[in-house]
Amino acid sequence: MTTINPFASNVTKPTLLRLPSYLDVIQRARKEGVRRLSSAEIGKELGYGSVQVRKDLASISNAGKPRTGFDVVQLEKDIRKALGYDEQRYAVLLGVGHMGRALMNYIGFAENGLQILAGFDVKPSDDESLKDKVLPLSALSDFCAKNHVDLAILTVPAEQADNATAEIVAAGIPAIWNFAPTTIHVPEHVIVQNENIAESLGLLWYRMKTEN
Amino acid sequence: MTTINPFASNVTKPTLLRLPSYLDVIQRARKEGVRRLSSAEIGKELGYGSVQVRKDLASISNAGKPRTGFDVVQLEKDIRKALGYDEQRYAVLLGVGHMGRALMNYIGFAENGLQILAGFDVKPSDDESLKDKVLPLSALSDFCAKNHVDLAILTVPAEQADNATAEIVAAGIPAIWNFAPTTIHVPEHVIVQNENIAESLGLLWYRMKTEN
Repeated sequence: MTTINPFASNVTKPTLLRLPSYLDVIQRARKEGVRRLSSAEIGKELGYGSVQVRKDLASISNAGKPRTGFDVVQLEKDIRKALGYDEQRYAVLLGVGHMGRALMNYIGFAENGLQILAGFDVKPSDDESLKDKVLPLSALSDFCAKNHVDLAILTVPAEQADNATAEIVAAGIPAIWNFAPTTIHVPEHVIVQNENIAESLGLLWYRMKTEN
Repeated sequence: MTTINPFASNVTKPTLLRLPSYLDVIQRARKEGVRRLSSAEIGKELGYGSVQVRKDLASISNAGKPRTGFDVVQLEKDIRKALGYDEQRYAVLLGVGHMGRALMNYIGFAENGLQILAGFDVKPSDDESLKDKVLPLSALSDFCAKNHVDLAILTVPAEQADNATAEIVAAGIPAIWNFAPTTIHVPEHVIVQNENIAESLGLLWYRMKTEN
């Protein structure tokens, strides 16, 4: 039985950002019935060198053995743990427009330990499947008093982001995952992670101009 | 009249990734009737130092003048140009599920020079507003022969990503914006940009564990 690596919390950010790709490869292999994989095989799939793979995975797992490679089942467990996917976290979502609905319906979140408890919007949802899960924005602070909420997902239009952020902060939610295409202002103790599609699109245009 | 900076194509990646935030601040100021902004004012809004702001913006614009600051209208034009938002690009989208629909309906894309010409899916869309814009996947290569397509947006489930990618490559589309939660394999001349929500969620969990 492999024990959990005590250094998991010291994993570096670049390694952390590669872990979901490793998880993807490992999960697909496991579903195909593969039981062991070498770091070279994993690296080939992702375009990483085997030294890089060994180093990344050694920082979060003991599932690798010389010559026989990684135990796929154990490695999957260890990566999920390092990514925090084995813990359940609870979110609310503000702004049930197209992007909000897409995220509320995204089944991948459940696999990654995220449960969206409710969506909040100034107007009720016209989407039948979400009707019972969408509450008026005025009910947010009451909802947060009664339920444990780790995270607010912000999917309102840019011009509503300041108001929505103020409601989130007032409700005492400690972290915001910001999909609104704008900068938000929060007190220092609130964690903000920006998911900026415009940023990504600008980078893509730049690469298309310079790489081809 | 400010001329376009000839060094725009030498903008560094970190600067490039900050440009959408600058654009956001500048656009909001312009809408509020502000005509000039100093680098200190812009920096304050974003949490950047004024030296950083001056350096970033000098690499893409001549709209800044000592003492009077930046001409807001000119700076907005220059940032949009540096980001490629002033050029029209044409995309198709593969996989009209929740995420695909959200992106097809995302109005921000038009502002950023991206037009989604059509969506493709193995089954027709049940979304009335998209009915005329969703074609069967089998029609992709014919569509690309008749229309100029710069980019494929991939929003299929992970297990369909390999097949969809093969169709995109066969249709001769030179770039893929990958929202599918998996790694895709393409020939070297095809540009892939991954939009990995799982990666981002893992990073967020990690920050919530270590920063609070």
